[in-house]
Amino acid sequence: MTPEAIKKLAQLLAKLPSLGPRQATRIAFFLAGMPKEEVAELSSALSDVADIKRCINCFSLAAAPSGGEPRPEAGRDNLCDICANPRRDQSLVAIVEKETDLQTVEKTKSFNGRYLVLGELPKDGVLSSEHKRRLERLKNPPAKGGQASQYEEIILALSPTTYGDLNAGLLAQDLRTVAKKITRLGRGIPTGGSIEFADEETLQGALKNRN
Amino acid sequence: MTPEAIKKLAQLLAKLPSLGPRQATRIAFFLAGMPKEEVAELSSALSDVADIKRCINCFSLAAAPSGGEPRPEAGRDNLCDICANPRRDQSLVAIVEKETDLQTVEKTKSFNGRYLVLGELPKDGVLSSEHKRRLERLKNPPAKGGQASQYEEIILALSPTTYGDLNAGLLAQDLRTVAKKITRLGRGIPTGGSIEFADEETLQGALKNRN
Repeated sequence: MTPEAIKKLAQLLAKLPSLGPRQATRIAFFLAGMPKEEVAELSSALSDVADIKRCINCFSLAAAPSGGEPRPEAGRDNLCDICANPRRDQSLVAIVEKETDLQTVEKTKSFNGRYLVLGELPKDGVLSSEHKRRLERLKNPPAKGGQASQYEEIILALSPTTYGDLNAGLLAQDLRTVAKKITRLGRGIPTGGSIEFADEETLQGALKNRN
Repeated sequence: MTPEAIKKLAQLLAKLPSLGPRQATRIAFFLAGMPKEEVAELSSALSDVADIKRCINCFSLAAAPSGGEPRPEAGRDNLCDICANPRRDQSLVAIVEKETDLQTVEKTKSFNGRYLVLGELPKDGVLSSEHKRRLERLKNPPAKGGQASQYEEIILALSPTTYGDLNAGLLAQDLRTVAKKITRLGRGIPTGGSIEFADEETLQGALKNRN
């Protein structure tokens, strides 16, 4: 009953993060009913993002697109603004899963180091070859004076979920030789949150991080 | 910090139903990181659905695409399978908001009438010109014998929300002359639901519809 073209589109949409099959079907029908010009606009926006390159240093999707307008501040070699900025602390790295996490950390204006965008973490604790390739980038910390090169600190900025905890443990093990300190984000009661409904672990964190 | 192309795509995605700005941004980044071939596949699926035509009778997006393979069962003139099926009861019409609602009703296999896909309903009770155009389709019920033509029943299959209730009232008023009976879906405890947590209105409906 559903036209094949809508089924096919819904299947592709269902592969996108946080879209279930039901929502994907609804969106596919919506797209099919949209004026042709708007669909064309979306199509062209899609092919534009496909041209964006990852930063060769932190792997975030933020480098100038090939053939796009040159961005003087980003420099050559497809470095993102952050990696190309000499005022960012090279000895401090935050490992995040996704670009949106990176942006949320940036918005705090409380972090002046660099990032490594690792990609979404596996639920079974087995890192993919792509994860490993990105982690390799951290294995040669910038040398400082005549000292053995080590990062001052690597922050594992992963969400405090079961998978986040599992992966943080594995990453800390993997990176223990390249950084003097490996930390995670502090746990506590979120702003506006209520003590009454905080779970034990959160509350333990909040007590520990009290200030 | 976010590349313009990703911002632009996220803005377009945020216009789709049930996608908020945060989810749209996340999906835009995901799409930007996807292999080019997969983005191209999605683009082509998009332009395929843009060719789908609405059924000229019920306005559902289910008619053969222009230039697509001919579907003998659907007949000419861009009628959908249901409207082209002579065994469906012409004197019984269910008004639904979206194609996905139509599909959910079809899956019950308990309805043998036809549909009118009205499009998502306004929150202020003011029907758009497109809604009105579609409702016009119901203003000439099929004649039966020598009798004045009226539908036996029009079912307002709208969700039992505040807006659904508001619009159902207005539609019932608007259509009162063209149908002998105008009904809504029965309210009650959903399968698997619990009486304890049912709200008053649901429980009132369940008592009224007891069987």
